[in-house]
Amino acid sequence: MRLVLFCIYSIIDYMILDGKKARESLSQRLEKRLENLGFKPKLVIFQIGNDEQSSLYIEKKKQFAKKIGVEVECNRLANDISTEEVISEIKKANIDQSTQGIIVQLPVPKHLDTTDVIEAISPQKDADGLTSHNLKLLWEGSSKAIVPATALGIFTLLDFYGIDVSGKHVGVIGRSSLVGKPTALLALKKNATVTVCHSKTKDLDSLLPTFDILISATGYPGLVTVKSVRKGQTVIDVGISVDYQNGERAVSGDVDFSVVQPIVENISPVPGGVGPMTVYSLFENLINLSEDS
Amino acid sequence: MRLVLFCIYSIIDYMILDGKKARESLSQRLEKRLENLGFKPKLVIFQIGNDEQSSLYIEKKKQFAKKIGVEVECNRLANDISTEEVISEIKKANIDQSTQGIIVQLPVPKHLDTTDVIEAISPQKDADGLTSHNLKLLWEGSSKAIVPATALGIFTLLDFYGIDVSGKHVGVIGRSSLVGKPTALLALKKNATVTVCHSKTKDLDSLLPTFDILISATGYPGLVTVKSVRKGQTVIDVGISVDYQNGERAVSGDVDFSVVQPIVENISPVPGGVGPMTVYSLFENLINLSEDS
Repeated sequence: MRLVLFCIYSIIDYMILDGKKARESLSQRLEKRLENLGFKPKLVIFQIGNDEQSSLYIEKKKQFAKKIGVEVECNRLANDISTEEVISEIKKANIDQSTQGIIVQLPVPKHLDTTDVIEAISPQKDADGLTSHNLKLLWEGSSKAIVPATALGIFTLLDFYGIDVSGKHVGVIGRSSLVGKPTALLALKKNATVTVCHSKTKDLDSLLPTFDILISATGYPGLVTVKSVRKGQTVIDVGISVDYQNGERAVSGDVDFSVVQPIVENISPVPGGVGPMTVYSLFENLINLSEDS
Repeated sequence: MRLVLFCIYSIIDYMILDGKKARESLSQRLEKRLENLGFKPKLVIFQIGNDEQSSLYIEKKKQFAKKIGVEVECNRLANDISTEEVISEIKKANIDQSTQGIIVQLPVPKHLDTTDVIEAISPQKDADGLTSHNLKLLWEGSSKAIVPATALGIFTLLDFYGIDVSGKHVGVIGRSSLVGKPTALLALKKNATVTVCHSKTKDLDSLLPTFDILISATGYPGLVTVKSVRKGQTVIDVGISVDYQNGERAVSGDVDFSVVQPIVENISPVPGGVGPMTVYSLFENLINLSEDS
């Protein structure tokens, strides 16, 4: 009896929130919805320039699209293209009836006006949910909002592992428009109490352990460490830092995984946590848009 | 010496953040800017129906406009007007070159689509900062954002009384699109750590005293009481509840003022706190728009 209890305790003691596993399992839902759709939707990706990291991300999107049966068309535009020329290309995709979703792989070269480029995307094809139209829907808590893929991926991962957010205290580290803020807004929509911390937050070490769910999106490896966490917490690592050591590409998150994992209850790794879920959510958005088109 | 110290201590012991006094003093800035503008800007207010509370708010806006020398035109539309008809009226004001700002007095009758009505306002005349265009600017932390008047009023009041927000922990109770969320976003822009609480937040009594600045925007009189606060805190009351007793109109905030005031360091009253600052901020927005027109 004691042994059995010990085993059960060991099982529920902590959980690795495996994004690949969750995506693998959830993909069947997307495939079913694609079947019901009756046509193969197309996502158009605009890549401006040839940033290596962007190319890798696009490759991952293409691989997943192929797996579930979605077409991805990547339009690579010259690094020195003007904002007006990018907008003109986006407008062509807006009126192309064979395209259901459009994204611009970010970041774009600095000479371009990111806001103007994003706003050129028709809200009805805005698969990344970044236009002001979609932001307003999310802001108002509308169920019609297309939610930025990373934020959506985080909560889909939590939901897959049965972690309820309602009434919990969610702490987000990072206040970017692309990740931190939409994550906070979505957590609020899901009835969490939400705190947003950032580089100007005082005494992070005292604050971070107070959260039930800690979501770190800063890009500073090792920011979340022994002092930041407590027993019973769920830790979601959204940081991605890429380093090249001896020609080898090494990816790390914000969380010092080896020391944090033994303390907390649930933790998502990097790589293999939120990353795969972000890709999943992008295509979930695409299918939502396709069903409405 | 002891007496002098005691007197100083008494002076800095607590401060009533008097919105009327702040507005009176700050109005001179607006008057100076109006002088430099070289013309008298016009704000067009659309009031739909004849809600008594709305009429009172509009009257206050008119009074302040008269005082500083701004024209206000109130267009009262029928209670049963359609969304399309309201939009058509707004579009006329959009192209009227003698109009620099447009607002729709909220709430509008329930049969109308508030989002469609608000989105009809040209972002260049959106004095309440409620269109998706302005929301996106605030979201991105742009200095060009027209900030919703209540949120702007709160931070102008704090600034007037020398209360720095940067690095402080600001707690907002309430997550409405009109007040709670823009207040949180503006606090974040001003480098505060921000927590948003609401009806689903557990154990408010433990959480609320942890904030340096507590902003309550719920409309529940007496929500913030002895248990919610601590020494050293700044409390901003944004709640407004109107009650009629024996034919007398009585306004109360969220804060149980008489018991909270002796505990905290700074407190804004209701009425006479954020309310006058909201009116001030609306006209500050109008002048910003007029200078850019």
